[in-house]
Amino acid sequence: MVSPWKGTRNRHLEYIHIEMDLGKLENVRVPASLTRRAEILVDDSTEPLPFSESLKWNEEGLIPAIVQDAENGDVLMMAWMDEPALRDTLASGQTHFFSRSRRSHWHKGATSGHVQHVESIWLDCDGDVILIKARQVGGACHEGYRSCFFRRVGDGGHLEFAAEPVFDAGAVYGRAQRPDADSVPAADGLESSAG
Amino acid sequence: MVSPWKGTRNRHLEYIHIEMDLGKLENVRVPASLTRRAEILVDDSTEPLPFSESLKWNEEGLIPAIVQDAENGDVLMMAWMDEPALRDTLASGQTHFFSRSRRSHWHKGATSGHVQHVESIWLDCDGDVILIKARQVGGACHEGYRSCFFRRVGDGGHLEFAAEPVFDAGAVYGRAQRPDADSVPAADGLESSAG
Repeated sequence: MVSPWKGTRNRHLEYIHIEMDLGKLENVRVPASLTRRAEILVDDSTEPLPFSESLKWNEEGLIPAIVQDAENGDVLMMAWMDEPALRDTLASGQTHFFSRSRRSHWHKGATSGHVQHVESIWLDCDGDVILIKARQVGGACHEGYRSCFFRRVGDGGHLEFAAEPVFDAGAVYGRAQRPDADSVPAADGLESSAG
Repeated sequence: MVSPWKGTRNRHLEYIHIEMDLGKLENVRVPASLTRRAEILVDDSTEPLPFSESLKWNEEGLIPAIVQDAENGDVLMMAWMDEPALRDTLASGQTHFFSRSRRSHWHKGATSGHVQHVESIWLDCDGDVILIKARQVGGACHEGYRSCFFRRVGDGGHLEFAAEPVFDAGAVYGRAQRPDADSVPAADGLESSAG
């Protein structure tokens, strides 16, 4: 997706090392983990989004964002965005979210490489849900599945697994993953779904 | 979808008139509007859902539910469920939701007839988002569209309409609908999406 603001906004991706003096920069958001090379977004813009009047953020300033596989239509995940995450998504063409549990931003795929290339962004009738159609690299789910929705309510109301993993979550995220694990991998922290 | 509890739970749909003395019934939830014949669900069951341990309700006791068109994969809407709404959905095979703004339950299609026949129910990895694949009668959107996601972020970041209505919302809901309206039709109140 081509950013609608290309050339009109002073915004760019930067890579820094943790030795960098972050205090000297303004308008800089840094991921929660500073234990490795960190990607940051520098945003000097304060102009409102062109469709900001149609957006309804919740009381926390967040909006749910559904990500759908642009190739086969599968629903991959749902996560939350605040306005900076939506701006980052629009500007970079890859999905960025806000984790409610960690109170921090995350760039989907920052750790795993499993980024989501945005093809189109949709808004629902009430303006309080976003739908993103994206090309998924690898898998969307931090447990190794293509989609986070790999469990189906089956006979007797019990959950059954209805998909096979597409990558080794333990290898990608650096520790063993249980398919039924509810917790976010602490070593990563950037790859959970609804956070 | 066949209810997993059929035969094991004392649960049934009832139609009542507003003259009925509701105070005499226990475990009865009544829609916000009592100005017309009301459909109620009587639920005597307190047994936990078979997958209740995998579900994570938010601090309000709600969970977001994405509804996807089982026929073509389109994402139709997102709304919220509390446990009774999820139970109603499982028991009836049609989607039921909880409206946060109106603090009441709604049965999708109760007014319009545009019900959603549940084909399968999925849970995400963290257990805090539900995905429902359903056969949609008519349109999911109270503004007359098949999907609530009929607006796309287009060139310059402005919203553009990317679908045609499939029914006359004004005729179905009893008053004029503007395609760009954010508000829930007050005359119905049961058909908004994320509520």
